[in-house]
Amino acid sequence: MQATNALSELLTTLMDRRPFSRKLDDSRSTIELCQALISERIETSGLQLAAAALGHFRQVDPDEKAAFFTYLNDDLDVDAARIVETATAYSLDRSPENFKALAATSEPKRQDLFRKLNEAPGATAELVAMRRDLLAQLKTMPELARTDFDLTHLLKSWFNRGFLVLRQITWDSPASILEKITAYEAVHEIQTWDELRRRLQPEDRRCFAFFHPAMPDDPLIFVEVALTKGVPESIQKVLSDNRHPLSGVEADTAVFYSISNCQAGLAGISFGNSLIKQVVRDLSSDLPNIKTFVTLSPIPGFGRWLEEQSLTANDSSDDTLAKLAAYYLLNAKHRSGKPLDPVARFHLGNGAMVHLVHSRADLSENGMAQSSGVMVNYLYDLTKIPQNIKSYASDGDVATSSAVKSLAKQGAKELGAAKTEHPK
Amino acid sequence: MQATNALSELLTTLMDRRPFSRKLDDSRSTIELCQALISERIETSGLQLAAAALGHFRQVDPDEKAAFFTYLNDDLDVDAARIVETATAYSLDRSPENFKALAATSEPKRQDLFRKLNEAPGATAELVAMRRDLLAQLKTMPELARTDFDLTHLLKSWFNRGFLVLRQITWDSPASILEKITAYEAVHEIQTWDELRRRLQPEDRRCFAFFHPAMPDDPLIFVEVALTKGVPESIQKVLSDNRHPLSGVEADTAVFYSISNCQAGLAGISFGNSLIKQVVRDLSSDLPNIKTFVTLSPIPGFGRWLEEQSLTANDSSDDTLAKLAAYYLLNAKHRSGKPLDPVARFHLGNGAMVHLVHSRADLSENGMAQSSGVMVNYLYDLTKIPQNIKSYASDGDVATSSAVKSLAKQGAKELGAAKTEHPK
Amino acid sequence: MQATNALSELLTTLMDRRPFSRKLDDSRSTIELCQALISERIETSGLQLAAAALGHFRQVDPDEKAAFFTYLNDDLDVDAARIVETATAYSLDRSPENFKALAATSEPKRQDLFRKLNEAPGATAELVAMRRDLLAQLKTMPELARTDFDLTHLLKSWFNRGFLVLRQITWDSPASILEKITAYEAVHEIQTWDELRRRLQPEDRRCFAFFHPAMPDDPLIFVEVALTKGVPESIQKVLSDNRHPLSGVEADTAVFYSISNCQAGLAGISFGNSLIKQVVRDLSSDLPNIKTFVTLSPIPGFGRWLEEQSLTANDSSDDTLAKLAAYYLLNAKHRSGKPLDPVARFHLGNGAMVHLVHSRADLSENGMAQSSGVMVNYLYDLTKIPQNIKSYASDGDVATSSAVKSLAKQGAKELGAAKTEHPK
Amino acid sequence: MQATNALSELLTTLMDRRPFSRKLDDSRSTIELCQALISERIETSGLQLAAAALGHFRQVDPDEKAAFFTYLNDDLDVDAARIVETATAYSLDRSPENFKALAATSEPKRQDLFRKLNEAPGATAELVAMRRDLLAQLKTMPELARTDFDLTHLLKSWFNRGFLVLRQITWDSPASILEKITAYEAVHEIQTWDELRRRLQPEDRRCFAFFHPAMPDDPLIFVEVALTKGVPESIQKVLSDNRHPLSGVEADTAVFYSISNCQAGLAGISFGNSLIKQVVRDLSSDLPNIKTFVTLSPIPGFGRWLEEQSLTANDSSDDTLAKLAAYYLLNAKHRSGKPLDPVARFHLGNGAMVHLVHSRADLSENGMAQSSGVMVNYLYDLTKIPQNIKSYASDGDVATSSAVKSLAKQGAKELGAAKTEHPK
Repeated sequence: MQATNALSELLTTLMDRRPFSRKLDDSRSTIELCQALISERIETSGLQLAAAALGHFRQVDPDEKAAFFTYLNDDLDVDAARIVETATAYSLDRSPENFKALAATSEPKRQDLFRKLNEAPGATAELVAMRRDLLAQLKTMPELARTDFDLTHLLKSWFNRGFLVLRQITWDSPASILEKITAYEAVHEIQTWDELRRRLQPEDRRCFAFFHPAMPDDPLIFVEVALTKGVPESIQKVLSDNRHPLSGVEADTAVFYSISNCQAGLAGISFGNSLIKQVVRDLSSDLPNIKTFVTLSPIPGFGRWLEEQSLTANDSSDDTLAKLAAYYLLNAKHRSGKPLDPVARFHLGNGAMVHLVHSRADLSENGMAQSSGVMVNYLYDLTKIPQNIKSYASDGDVATSSAVKSLAKQGAKELGAAKTEHPK
Repeated sequence: MQATNALSELLTTLMDRRPFSRKLDDSRSTIELCQALISERIETSGLQLAAAALGHFRQVDPDEKAAFFTYLNDDLDVDAARIVETATAYSLDRSPENFKALAATSEPKRQDLFRKLNEAPGATAELVAMRRDLLAQLKTMPELARTDFDLTHLLKSWFNRGFLVLRQITWDSPASILEKITAYEAVHEIQTWDELRRRLQPEDRRCFAFFHPAMPDDPLIFVEVALTKGVPESIQKVLSDNRHPLSGVEADTAVFYSISNCQAGLAGISFGNSLIKQVVRDLSSDLPNIKTFVTLSPIPGFGRWLEEQSLTANDSSDDTLAKLAAYYLLNAKHRSGKPLDPVARFHLGNGAMVHLVHSRADLSENGMAQSSGVMVNYLYDLTKIPQNIKSYASDGDVATSSAVKSLAKQGAKELGAAKTEHPK
Repeated sequence: MQATNALSELLTTLMDRRPFSRKLDDSRSTIELCQALISERIETSGLQLAAAALGHFRQVDPDEKAAFFTYLNDDLDVDAARIVETATAYSLDRSPENFKALAATSEPKRQDLFRKLNEAPGATAELVAMRRDLLAQLKTMPELARTDFDLTHLLKSWFNRGFLVLRQITWDSPASILEKITAYEAVHEIQTWDELRRRLQPEDRRCFAFFHPAMPDDPLIFVEVALTKGVPESIQKVLSDNRHPLSGVEADTAVFYSISNCQAGLAGISFGNSLIKQVVRDLSSDLPNIKTFVTLSPIPGFGRWLEEQSLTANDSSDDTLAKLAAYYLLNAKHRSGKPLDPVARFHLGNGAMVHLVHSRADLSENGMAQSSGVMVNYLYDLTKIPQNIKSYASDGDVATSSAVKSLAKQGAKELGAAKTEHPK
Repeated sequence: MQATNALSELLTTLMDRRPFSRKLDDSRSTIELCQALISERIETSGLQLAAAALGHFRQVDPDEKAAFFTYLNDDLDVDAARIVETATAYSLDRSPENFKALAATSEPKRQDLFRKLNEAPGATAELVAMRRDLLAQLKTMPELARTDFDLTHLLKSWFNRGFLVLRQITWDSPASILEKITAYEAVHEIQTWDELRRRLQPEDRRCFAFFHPAMPDDPLIFVEVALTKGVPESIQKVLSDNRHPLSGVEADTAVFYSISNCQAGLAGISFGNSLIKQVVRDLSSDLPNIKTFVTLSPIPGFGRWLEEQSLTANDSSDDTLAKLAAYYLLNAKHRSGKPLDPVARFHLGNGAMVHLVHSRADLSENGMAQSSGVMVNYLYDLTKIPQNIKSYASDGDVATSSAVKSLAKQGAKELGAAKTEHPK
């Protein structure tokens, strides 16, 4: 029964910021429009130029985009010689004036351009889309990493945790949002609106997303949660269409069974850790019966690793696959010394521990292909997270339950035996 | 009849970001908390440290605040020698790695601290308050201008026009917002809730404010507007409590009679120009009968200037005062070459023109003291704004109606005569 | 930019009226619970009894429902002998006391029971569902018409136009509402969410529904509108999936192409007329370019009538079908003297006129079966509606364009010729 | 984190029902407009006539209002002779047709007029205001009780508990609502906005109101609640402006210290009981630490009763006053056999018990005048309410704590002694 007035009234007018029409009645190129924008002093004209530049950019072909990025990268770069001068001056006299001169010279001009572009209504989403294009170009034009560094720096600042809004996604959410959830779901595909409804409407299902106020229609990341009795062993059971929903009182476990990033243009800006922590905090407070927070996660690198060991799932019993997967999670390492499996790196980096490994847990085509149907529960034990994070960060220690440790040992034997049987 | 769902649902959960309790059960100082925060890698602990640091800072005395600012200014400054190195390297090889090294060394560490602090719920308002404290300290510790430069830089980026929300303030707005409007009104004081109501409720009165989504309860700036028939000559008539409100159809003029900034901690970050332009745009579209957009503005420097001319209002007739005020507005110059009067500089810089000058227009104590009761209408003529801005910016030209030009000429004579009469 | 606070704050707490749990831990029958409710004086217990009675009723089989309706019909009827007494007394002395006695005796006790049941949270929707069950029983138990009269009387009062809320349905509406729109669409079936989106999202499509505040998740009636250039001749063109949407400025016509009632339990309580009038009013004010308001309506009785004339569509050219349909609309009469076609009766009763008749206008299976593909535009000409209503009500006059009049005359000839060719 | 979409979207359009302009360009009288409305069959014209009739009525003088009420009372009354006929017919044959004929004749025509009037936007509030006028006329025209009976009957049905919305009033509520709270507060007057704020903003203060969706800006009734540690003994302490607010965890008691009805036109339609019960239920669930629910109530009849006993407060010590007040509450009876004190009747009728009596509990001018500063706590003990209601309803038993029973006995002695001292 809290009053939400101040907030809801605020939003009443957010919608009034209708985008300027972006018809290309301005025949200038994106670069020319940006040059005009940089030198423009009239705020209103600035907004129009910014809108025109963004509207123009959106519609041009990859070559013109590449040209624009090169302009940003080269023409709007810093002048290193000037920085040397101002930094030297500042090292001699740390006066405010010298500091400002140094600061002014050491910030690339493109940063200011990005800020000016952002002033147009709806521009933030356009800049996120621009970074998606930039990442695409980066593959063939690695020197654009300089511009990407600057744009990322700005987006990180603007998408600071303090500006994000957590919001529950329900069957009462706007269809326009729900269709984005369907489109962005990256882990367990949603085929129909009925499948979507089964993940949102039952009393024992939840979905939460982070939003940014400047992009209120576009989720940044979302997590799907199942409330269960005990830790589930199979994703098909979780997603089954003939379950009997639990009431809030019966459930004792919250299962994060899918986490999806939505904005390719925000790649590398991590929201997942914050999202999980916030959802754990909120669910703990809303549903005191929920004591266990686990994931039910894919092991996307397992299939390939099996192949590299010259093993195939077909040769192996379910038991053996679970043992090998446990071994893989604990022992297969990335060149960084961290686990080879990217999902494992994410959750372990957040302070979770490897809790249980299940075979025949994902029988979908994708699940069989990626990881021979094996899945893993990572456990978020609030009391151990800080310690886990520290040991993982400093020594690469993988926090593991004794059950999985023992499984991994058996996996080591299987692997030895297998290698003996099928020597390369 | 537009649907606002996406937005209003978004806000449903904004309120769920309840601030961490900020009890000082943590006995560390602000500096120690910030040192911990800088080295912390665990996101959750980071939020708690940030909240604790901000909560602590808010409560300490000015001396401890000064010590904290000195820590920011000195310990978290850039290392100029390192910048020289990395800039030199970059000037030789503009590789992405060299660019990143340069960027990393040239950003003061305090910037990153500010971003980390902002992650805590409600932190943005605390950082704005911190800058207010910083501005206060700056008077006696001018070297803090370095830290102020950095904090201002960040706040400018975060309060980018693209993130602001324009919102109408009405008699249906939350009392908690309205009391802030009352408190922040800086031009024509609001004494009672009845006075406030007279500025909000009648059909021919409007009030608009900019808000930032991270501070939804706190207006940044607001403007009060009267819809009138013809250009008004007196603020007392506008504020009178026995007016007969006009209907939307009768009014042909929108009068901006008061603009107030609300956040001392955002001083120097200008919102007024954007606000006026947006309100002109919105009113034009909502009320097509409104053709004229003017201010009814004080002339705050006129009283002092009169004194400096050894003139007093008492000696002068109303007519004479209007002539002298016109002269003052057009001819009294600041060392920058721009008009001496600060309100004139604001509106002329936005592209308005000096339209009419009225004596006996503000008979309040303050109005008499500041400007002998004289007020001025600045006219916002949408077709002339760009040209006005350019001539004013380049040549300091003050766009002026012929009526005021002629008045100013007569003012010049009066001034000559007066000086002859009362030679110093 | 209107403030909607008072309203939206109001709704913040509407949701707090969570229904009592309706577990049947109370073993009493619906009748017993209602008997207890009638004699209960404690408000809180009353709410619980009401909730229990409604929860119970919902779950019992048709036989127990029939028994309950019989109880309402007989046990909670008026006592006619007592009415004769009190009415006689009142005829002799029109004192307030006598009036109250008369009023008390002449209202059936079931009316008060319905009002008591309605006090439970969510009860209004249950009572609407109860009437749906009642209508079903009415077929075999015509004496229940007495109870139906009372329940209808009450629902009419509660669903008074003054309490209804018009609301636009958009692609941003909650999925839970949209699935109801899909389910209730009775004219041109919606098969997929994509089809639904094509009726809501494009700039030239609108959908409006009436809601009652006590049933905020359940539309009562909705109308789908296409904004077009000129009057459309075919529903398939309107619903086509590869149209190019018009902008608001291009469209000059609003086409009501589907009107569906949603609540079987509100049958006989008419909302359609109010809905059309309100939408015409709102669209006129929002989109001044829209000058023409027409329907694109089925002619559901035409197919059967053709058969009765021993004609079949197969025998007839498209031209002939249009002529016969025009003839049918103007000349085939119901025993009431009004047109035989029910959709015609609805729109003519609202003051519309028969504007144009099109063959090959609905090529769907249903459209071909019902009306051999012919459709009709009824025109809502605001200046003529009152006159049309009067002539239609008093004399049964069917307002008709000269084009359709002429078509109908040709239809008469065709019919004559056909009858000559195929004498019965 | 519940989603409120369906509801808030619903309200987005509630505001769109702007009232028709009610300019009296229609020169007909209210009666003539209503006659036209009764015979009008065109829905749109009906809305306009209804709006015109209500607009007209609102502005006429009391004499014309009286004439209108007489028209309702006499011309739109039932025809008793016809009722005798139709009731006789129905007693012979309970056919649906006979039932409908009886129902049609036994409902006064004014009822249907009220329903037609209600269809205009904003009409419900006008009808409530009309009843206020009717009650005023009733004093001199008692025969209007017939019309009042009908209007009350309808309003009771429309303001059924199932349609009311409970809503918390906070310092974030719209000023337009808050000014109504201030105006309607009938128990402990609110003088300034600061006083109002002290009742809304502190963490240990609450205010709840019932609203009807057709009058979203107008509370029907509200209750002010203080959360305290222990049962408070003085209203001045509760309202003090230098209290230290308690946190939610510290408080163990909720004190209903003021309940005010807002709509004179809804007199006799009781909302207080439902409001208290709902608030008790909600607070119990939100704040599990709150175990005790009491009022701090005035004893408005005590002062007059004292006088009637030829006693004055001045003669009596504080102790004696408390004893006499206890005696008064338990023993002074209304002709109905229920307690003489109206506030006592209200709370006892709701199932509360007399818990504690305090002297010097209300030192305000009004409190001293009405009840010599004595106040009483009525205790709402959820486990005893049903039993209390029953004994009170059947036997007039006043549930009383042993402390107050004992106090009342001492009061009896004081009274005896006083009467001995001051024999009449």
